Amino acid sequence: MTNSPIAMIKEYFGYFADRLRNKKATFVLVIATTDVSLIPGITIAGASPEFTHFTPAADAEFLVTGRVYSMNSIPVSPTGLPSPVVLARAANELLNFPVLVADAGSRVKPRIPLIDLGGEPGKDIRVGAVRKEVAEEVLRRSELLGKELSKETDLLLIGESVPGGTTTAMALLQALGYDALGKTSSASPDNPKDLKVRIVNEALRNLGNVSSPLEVAAKVSDPMLIAVAGLVNGFRKDVLLCGGTQMIAAAALIKAMYGNEALSRIAIGTTRWVVEDPTADALGLAKQVGVRVLSAQLEFSKSRYEGLRMYDKYYVKEGVGAGGLAVTAMANGYDKDVILAKTEEIYSGLVNRA
Amino acid sequence: MTNSPIAMIKEYFGYFADRLRNKKATFVLVIATTDVSLIPGITIAGASPEFTHFTPAADAEFLVTGRVYSMNSIPVSPTGLPSPVVLARAANELLNFPVLVADAGSRVKPRIPLIDLGGEPGKDIRVGAVRKEVAEEVLRRSELLGKELSKETDLLLIGESVPGGTTTAMALLQALGYDALGKTSSASPDNPKDLKVRIVNEALRNLGNVSSPLEVAAKVSDPMLIAVAGLVNGFRKDVLLCGGTQMIAAAALIKAMYGNEALSRIAIGTTRWVVEDPTADALGLAKQVGVRVLSAQLEFSKSRYEGLRMYDKYYVKEGVGAGGLAVTAMANGYDKDVILAKTEEIYSGLVNRA
Repeated sequence: MTNSPIAMIKEYFGYFADRLRNKKATFVLVIATTDVSLIPGITIAGASPEFTHFTPAADAEFLVTGRVYSMNSIPVSPTGLPSPVVLARAANELLNFPVLVADAGSRVKPRIPLIDLGGEPGKDIRVGAVRKEVAEEVLRRSELLGKELSKETDLLLIGESVPGGTTTAMALLQALGYDALGKTSSASPDNPKDLKVRIVNEALRNLGNVSSPLEVAAKVSDPMLIAVAGLVNGFRKDVLLCGGTQMIAAAALIKAMYGNEALSRIAIGTTRWVVEDPTADALGLAKQVGVRVLSAQLEFSKSRYEGLRMYDKYYVKEGVGAGGLAVTAMANGYDKDVILAKTEEIYSGLVNRA
Repeated sequence: MTNSPIAMIKEYFGYFADRLRNKKATFVLVIATTDVSLIPGITIAGASPEFTHFTPAADAEFLVTGRVYSMNSIPVSPTGLPSPVVLARAANELLNFPVLVADAGSRVKPRIPLIDLGGEPGKDIRVGAVRKEVAEEVLRRSELLGKELSKETDLLLIGESVPGGTTTAMALLQALGYDALGKTSSASPDNPKDLKVRIVNEALRNLGNVSSPLEVAAKVSDPMLIAVAGLVNGFRKDVLLCGGTQMIAAAALIKAMYGNEALSRIAIGTTRWVVEDPTADALGLAKQVGVRVLSAQLEFSKSRYEGLRMYDKYYVKEGVGAGGLAVTAMANGYDKDVILAKTEEIYSGLVNRA
């Protein structure tokens, strides 16, 4: 564990923050749904299990437009805590990176310019998440997109919005040979680990014969993870995977598919809430995979909004690229107070509208 | 009429070539279909009327990947002449701009990362091309896309692939008050002007009450033209509209919707085959609209391929952004022989494969 020259960022297992400074960058948000999110109790990334399938669409709409078209407001937890999209949008208002949204397979389509990667919504991992030929198509199209973006962009940031995604991440990590049961994070401080492990174990029992990491991912993970691997492989330059343990699973897939060259170009950018999550082991997973982690040392405990103060109590934690965007904002000179103030400004617009 | 310092480009009604040099640029191909292309005899942008609905998808696939997924090969005319995508891809291999494909409404979806602008395939303009609310959605999303791209791109190039699009362009120009009957170009040297004028007149008779230029475009043109207007408005910086008389119609719509400020940022980039087309009056239309035209002074008459030599006999002429990409390649130092050699290289790959 080391401190970055910029004390706002903690770097683990290597240095990467310098590679985030003054770059021509593009942020790609990859969205998908998985029917895992419909399992009662597995996620709070939505007001109810059914609403979790609207979360990626609403996150994407708000990130790009500052408005939501597919529902009444931004996604909230069952107790009304706001989606991390408020933090993601705040950080990107500081950075002003172009935002593109790519759909790897989601049931509700956001009403914005939406890049179709040829996917399908992820099914429950116990019955097989994505058909093999669909996974191959998502991978192929994502590689093409990464390649086109590399022509004018030096740094690619990739975020995700996939409710239920820490369970599919656990399944993928475990299936790729890592010791991951019960170690991925959660949007809730009451991480429902027993339930997740039960689902993952059942999925792994049904895995059957698989001949490649892609096939493993298709069976037991979600379409987003496949798209992220394709983007990284097509891009060929530095990539910050903006997210928590879901992005560590993406890194594991990237390593399995493309080896250490690809791993050398990537790092995880997330929040300290993920890194410090007492119910998970993000750093242990990252160490197993061998991927660098950058943590944005955010502090929301003194926010004037209860909904944001709860972030410091390990609610929400991460998503929609929030952590990686915050890391990148910090690497480019914005401190945690500026990021909080921007986040409050955005959140206040929502609270006042409601 | 004036000659550019670079003799390969002719500039009309103003100068723009300097603004194409050494820029961070992105090329967006906007695709759409219109049922006008199903009218027998109206277009040769496809081996048969039915095949014209595959043309945009196949053009897009070949431009991005160098392969075609939706049909056996690139689009051809009924006598086998190759789509201008061979020229477009050649010019962009020299420029190496990122290519994004945006779908404003097409029946066949290319199997590449495809940006959904929320449109629908254009219907026959005699019955109303696009519903008003769909036109508004396409416009809104296109503006969002243009805005995001403007964050890291200084110059936007926009191309199109819309078989039947010179008829919808004629209808739009005429409906916006220009003297356009029989003046738009064609992929054929035997421009079926009488047929086009008949269709256009019928569409204009059925126009009914319309209260805005957008509504006019929705009724009698095609989804691509609306998307181009939105992109230009969202982008707020220089745009080269890569195409012939279809893009002059787009410029007319842009002028009607956004006024002279928007017009001051755009120019048409096309081929001399469009400018010199004896069956049309591209320059006369551009002069009426008040938009600059840049012409790539290409010469394919000595090509070793019959299919490309026919371009110099006013077959094909333009499309998929070919002319504007050639203009931009010339502005950045590639001469017509280099562009022809590159085009032959790409065409030879197809001929040998077939």
